[in-house]
Amino acid sequence: MSGTDHSLLRPARYPDAPAVILVDPQMGENIGTTARAMLNCGLSDLRIVRPRDGWPNEKAVSASAGALDVMPPVAVFETLPAALEGCHQVYATTARPREMVKPVFTPHGAAADMRTRQAAGQTIGLVFGGERAGLTTDDVALAHGIITIPLNPGFTSLNLAQAVLLVAYAWCEAGDGTPGRVVPTGDSRPAPHEEVEAFLVRLEEELESGNFFRTPEMKPAMLRNIRALYLRAEPTDQEIRTLHGMLTALIGRKGTVRSGKCEAL
Amino acid sequence: MSGTDHSLLRPARYPDAPAVILVDPQMGENIGTTARAMLNCGLSDLRIVRPRDGWPNEKAVSASAGALDVMPPVAVFETLPAALEGCHQVYATTARPREMVKPVFTPHGAAADMRTRQAAGQTIGLVFGGERAGLTTDDVALAHGIITIPLNPGFTSLNLAQAVLLVAYAWCEAGDGTPGRVVPTGDSRPAPHEEVEAFLVRLEEELESGNFFRTPEMKPAMLRNIRALYLRAEPTDQEIRTLHGMLTALIGRKGTVRSGKCEAL
Repeated sequence: MSGTDHSLLRPARYPDAPAVILVDPQMGENIGTTARAMLNCGLSDLRIVRPRDGWPNEKAVSASAGALDVMPPVAVFETLPAALEGCHQVYATTARPREMVKPVFTPHGAAADMRTRQAAGQTIGLVFGGERAGLTTDDVALAHGIITIPLNPGFTSLNLAQAVLLVAYAWCEAGDGTPGRVVPTGDSRPAPHEEVEAFLVRLEEELESGNFFRTPEMKPAMLRNIRALYLRAEPTDQEIRTLHGMLTALIGRKGTVRSGKCEAL
Repeated sequence: MSGTDHSLLRPARYPDAPAVILVDPQMGENIGTTARAMLNCGLSDLRIVRPRDGWPNEKAVSASAGALDVMPPVAVFETLPAALEGCHQVYATTARPREMVKPVFTPHGAAADMRTRQAAGQTIGLVFGGERAGLTTDDVALAHGIITIPLNPGFTSLNLAQAVLLVAYAWCEAGDGTPGRVVPTGDSRPAPHEEVEAFLVRLEEELESGNFFRTPEMKPAMLRNIRALYLRAEPTDQEIRTLHGMLTALIGRKGTVRSGKCEAL
């Protein structure tokens, strides 16, 4: 899915978004894919602690799909406490339960918590472990809360960028106002009730002419059911015009004899 | 993040989960990473339409982190309509708006819609386009609804597996009952009010002995603030015991002269 609006591309600096801290990242590609996942969700503050292959890293840049080219420079640290500077609330993402009394959030729960805190001016830090070993318990101890992503217990195998993506997207979603469902009608508008009715009345007449209603006693229920179908479709004004045109085409040329009736139009 | 419970591993068949249909997938690796993303979220029905490099595909298996080894066989089709067999409701994921009057969902909105329909016995199909061109408008026309993932308009660059992951995870999350925030206390329990109070009373006495309260008129407010801090921490019974031990250690050996008072204990 690619839909970048290039007028918004440079520079990609989102100071109000959470920072992401990777601890002991191993492969440069994974730092790059993390940056890519972050920027998709509107995060731009990436900090890395003791990158195995050092920094800068060409493989990271290549794997970032352009993200690292437009994000602020990645900050590099020797220790996690140093990387957490300025963060008021820190969440560590890990799948393994730890022997500590610490709040455990789902991504959705954490995102709501983050948004509340950010509204109060707090800076958020999201800590992720490297591919090899994840976070140590001492790393997790530095966090205020833990994020554990509920997945299939029979198969849990996210890569680093995917874990970052799910947490970052939850944060992004929690601040996004897009309605869950909309039906764009473009230049058309939903047909008001009377326009739908006019079509249905005409449809009934033509169906009657075509001997659709085999038995008079069934007709009211059948009409109601037909109306239910068309109302469920919520036709637009354009669609009602189209339906009228379809009906005209189906009943045949004006004046055609049908069932003994002659339509003089 | 890896936490697979191997007793649940074989076979990975989740007939009540949505099917995923990839149209014109190009690289075998992307079919594999799609399968991996699916299985993480409890989906197992993968269907592919006109895979560029045919099927089976070793690169797909390698890239699937074991998912393709345990999922049911991938079904291969020549056309999208054939692949949609048995699906009652189909959602096509695309970033590009289309000139059709069709509901557009966020992943969250679609997931709620899916769950409602699945409760009524409907089978769900999730259609994704290949890496090269995404879905054609004719492909999208076959769907009942569109899913568009709200992301950073300044940078939208998800790969196929990530798009599948975000939609699949939204579905998974919508059926998951994990609370947004829990504080596991292990073998401890939250300390009841009187235990916290007993500690605070003792703390007050020792602070008084240590001349902490400089001015009598400030003392009530300072005590309330101290209580607020400890109550916010919601200490467990074990933590209250620990705090008592810390206090004992800090005030010194029993009987030590402090501020002219002799503690005979």
